[in-house]
Amino acid sequence: MIKELQVNSGNRNELIDVTSQVAEVAKGVLDGVITLFVPHTTAAITINEGADPDVKTDILRKLSELIPKNDGYEHAEGNSDSHLKSSLFGPSLQVIVENGRLVLGTWQSIYFCEFDGPRNRKLIIKY
Amino acid sequence: MIKELQVNSGNRNELIDVTSQVAEVAKGVLDGVITLFVPHTTAAITINEGADPDVKTDILRKLSELIPKNDGYEHAEGNSDSHLKSSLFGPSLQVIVENGRLVLGTWQSIYFCEFDGPRNRKLIIKY
Amino acid sequence: MIKELQVNSGNRNELIDVTSQVAEVAKGVLDGVITLFVPHTTAAITINEGADPDVKTDILRKLSELIPKNDGYEHAEGNSDSHLKSSLFGPSLQVIVENGRLVLGTWQSIYFCEFDGPRNRKLIIKY
Repeated sequence: MIKELQVNSGNRNELIDVTSQVAEVAKGVLDGVITLFVPHTTAAITINEGADPDVKTDILRKLSELIPKNDGYEHAEGNSDSHLKSSLFGPSLQVIVENGRLVLGTWQSIYFCEFDGPRNRKLIIKY
Repeated sequence: MIKELQVNSGNRNELIDVTSQVAEVAKGVLDGVITLFVPHTTAAITINEGADPDVKTDILRKLSELIPKNDGYEHAEGNSDSHLKSSLFGPSLQVIVENGRLVLGTWQSIYFCEFDGPRNRKLIIKY
Repeated sequence: MIKELQVNSGNRNELIDVTSQVAEVAKGVLDGVITLFVPHTTAAITINEGADPDVKTDILRKLSELIPKNDGYEHAEGNSDSHLKSSLFGPSLQVIVENGRLVLGTWQSIYFCEFDGPRNRKLIIKY
């Protein structure tokens, strides 16, 4: 089965917590592995700390410092930084499900990574 | 089932579009998830824009600027940069298949990432 | 089936070879794909060269040079570098199994990546 989530971002760079939406889908899976897939080339999917919002701030700030928006890129759309970030974080992720519940560590949240927003995005869940 | 694709690179750093070969394998899969796996330690697999070739140029140039070929590395083979790039982009990727077709976004292409070419490489597809 | 491996690190940054433990689990799988999942937000999983230990040294040194421990981060725990490294290398990985054996390239080893040790960690294997 395939489910498409709508994810709307409000900033150019943003980590959007989608854990509860993915957990909702997991309820219908007894045991197995869910595949999360981002059908965009300037966005990604990752897992990181969900407790302190400063972690998100630090991750996005340092990443943009390493890969600045303007840096003599040839691609005319002005988002080559977004494309590189997308490949570094990656478009797909696997999450394990046990008895209808996501197998995540205590501090883990699933984040849709927006690197060229604000935009209306999709996250595809295969279960 | 397992299929091995032959991928031959022509440069030290190169993103090689393998979407059509993977799509060919997907035709034999009704619905499911395909695993792409790179059995090398100086290459990787990613998904990014397939329309404007400048995106590939920018990604490879910026990545090499962050991780230069020569940087006081201890590994005597002179390809520690390639090894780090390989882990950053990653050796495996999952692609969803629906009715024998790859579920990809409009702008997405699948790229074999050469980081220490030119070499003859393999891409393993498990379906 | 799910198996939890115990992984204990001895340094702040460390790549710990877990290939033999994963291969042991693979013996019980005829053919398929194993999912490796790290339930931590300052650790990751990757595949890289297992032959020359200098490769591990170079990877960890260069990565820490790009993402220093102290860099004006807001997160008060002092491990924002670890969180970013964790997302760059990634929390999950797929490995193919054929006839009970891991399908790995000649030089490939599977590494648990510690980025905020020393700690007692877990690696979850779904097979």
